[in-house]
Amino acid sequence: MTILVAVRGWKPDHWIHALREVAPDRSVVLPGDDFDSSSVRYALVWKPEPGYLKTFEKLEVIFSLGAGVDHLTTDPDLPDLPVVRIVDPDLTGRMTEWVVLNVLLHHRRHAHYAAAQTSCSWKPLRQWAAGAVRVGIMGLGELGRDAARALLALGFNVSGWSRTEKRMEGVDCFHGREGLAPFLARTDILVSLLPLTAETENLIDRSVIDALAKDGPLGGPVILNAGRGRSLVEADLLDALNDGRLRGASLDVFATEPLPPESPLWGAPNLFMTPHVAAESDPVALSRYVLGEIVAYEAGQPLRHLVDRGKGY
Amino acid sequence: MTILVAVRGWKPDHWIHALREVAPDRSVVLPGDDFDSSSVRYALVWKPEPGYLKTFEKLEVIFSLGAGVDHLTTDPDLPDLPVVRIVDPDLTGRMTEWVVLNVLLHHRRHAHYAAAQTSCSWKPLRQWAAGAVRVGIMGLGELGRDAARALLALGFNVSGWSRTEKRMEGVDCFHGREGLAPFLARTDILVSLLPLTAETENLIDRSVIDALAKDGPLGGPVILNAGRGRSLVEADLLDALNDGRLRGASLDVFATEPLPPESPLWGAPNLFMTPHVAAESDPVALSRYVLGEIVAYEAGQPLRHLVDRGKGY
Repeated sequence: MTILVAVRGWKPDHWIHALREVAPDRSVVLPGDDFDSSSVRYALVWKPEPGYLKTFEKLEVIFSLGAGVDHLTTDPDLPDLPVVRIVDPDLTGRMTEWVVLNVLLHHRRHAHYAAAQTSCSWKPLRQWAAGAVRVGIMGLGELGRDAARALLALGFNVSGWSRTEKRMEGVDCFHGREGLAPFLARTDILVSLLPLTAETENLIDRSVIDALAKDGPLGGPVILNAGRGRSLVEADLLDALNDGRLRGASLDVFATEPLPPESPLWGAPNLFMTPHVAAESDPVALSRYVLGEIVAYEAGQPLRHLVDRGKGY
Repeated sequence: MTILVAVRGWKPDHWIHALREVAPDRSVVLPGDDFDSSSVRYALVWKPEPGYLKTFEKLEVIFSLGAGVDHLTTDPDLPDLPVVRIVDPDLTGRMTEWVVLNVLLHHRRHAHYAAAQTSCSWKPLRQWAAGAVRVGIMGLGELGRDAARALLALGFNVSGWSRTEKRMEGVDCFHGREGLAPFLARTDILVSLLPLTAETENLIDRSVIDALAKDGPLGGPVILNAGRGRSLVEADLLDALNDGRLRGASLDVFATEPLPPESPLWGAPNLFMTPHVAAESDPVALSRYVLGEIVAYEAGQPLRHLVDRGKGY
């Protein structure tokens, strides 16, 4: 019952260490190790080499070590096996922290106060109430719902948009193509937590930016993206920040990562940036989670949070 | 049943306008207006001229238009009348926003990411979990309890300290002088929401700073103050930021406000500052609140949230 850990772009040490700690009786291997490939039943992966997973004939389950699975679904040779998404409270909570922090940075005018501090000047501004701010969340899966709950608790007016119809208490829910325009028209702060699929690629473009509410208390709409970089057209965002159609933005994800030093995004006005750290996968928390899922699976329980390949998430 | 609005340092226009809107059948007057002083039953005040309130012989209730009442209790001629503190969900929610924002700024290493962005560099850091961060709130009144609830919901490990014994589910509660040392020893982020009294003046000094936890994930303790400036010794805070005994701080209140341009605080390392705007009194929300309390009082209901002059809050 060997567990394979195949991660690219991340150092595997933490994962190996954490897994061996929670599963001392199992064999945990890395791609370069000397092991019998037919012993591998489970693979924990992040951006595995395309075609690599199909080389394990006895592989039963693939675990994707992050919230998104586009790193897998783009592999044309991905074997036809169950792919499990990580839906861990630790990862969800981290994303909610990022969303709450960035909503508050714009709502509470952090850029103004940081600049005032730099110039040693006392410049209080009137502050609108949270209830006057309409936050619209794109993507109402585990992450979107948890962020919505936290924002509701802080008094924000929250709505959501998803591909298919969803319901959530206290949240105005919109869905599908026809629901997009009314959702955007009542949104002051747009939060994208969308997965990357054929449908969401380049979804947030100039037309979406220009359809956001213009009459809100912030003096213009704000966009937050912690889903996937390629669901947003960076050139359109940059134009809108530069000419003032957008009041501000926060980005954790980018079309190209790491973001190249020559990108004009670094110096864009009223933009807060983090280097894809919104919801870092924590090896200890996620190793425990994955092992729990494996144990349940071996006891005959159904796998949870399976990826629908047709939908792409 | 005239209502007097006596505010210093604030423009009274918003208050007069808001009060007249919610109470169109009542007379609302300002200190300079032409009115019969014996008609005044209620006074809504912020930093009134010492001795001024005793000139109204038929005055029945004094409403303090902010969370703190030290602006009143320092008036030696304050008439012996009920003083009502504002405990309004709007004001409480604003304070919680400030606390959550500033806890997250330090927890999520905003200073590091802002500096990385300025230098166009992609510098992800490992992020500890919220549950590994021990937030200690000084002051467990309405404001402290609401902030505690919000931080608990985000997964932080929360404790509280108050003058007298309090209980709150999910929060480790400490109290009194003897409870201070164990409270500080388990605190990574100290949040002061204390009122200013003889007991709290200069309470947060070098000895308190040095008693905070040193083994937390942030690499050193952090202090947030949104209570009153004079409960903290600014010179001690500055020393500790400069020599690294403190990892960071956030201040909304200062011993002298506005903070003079020559104050060394403006340029202190890892310090986030706001100009006493954490929980701004909103004229519309608070006018409605005060009118509701007046109507209940006139109907024979007891006044709520009365200030205890002995305790000073």
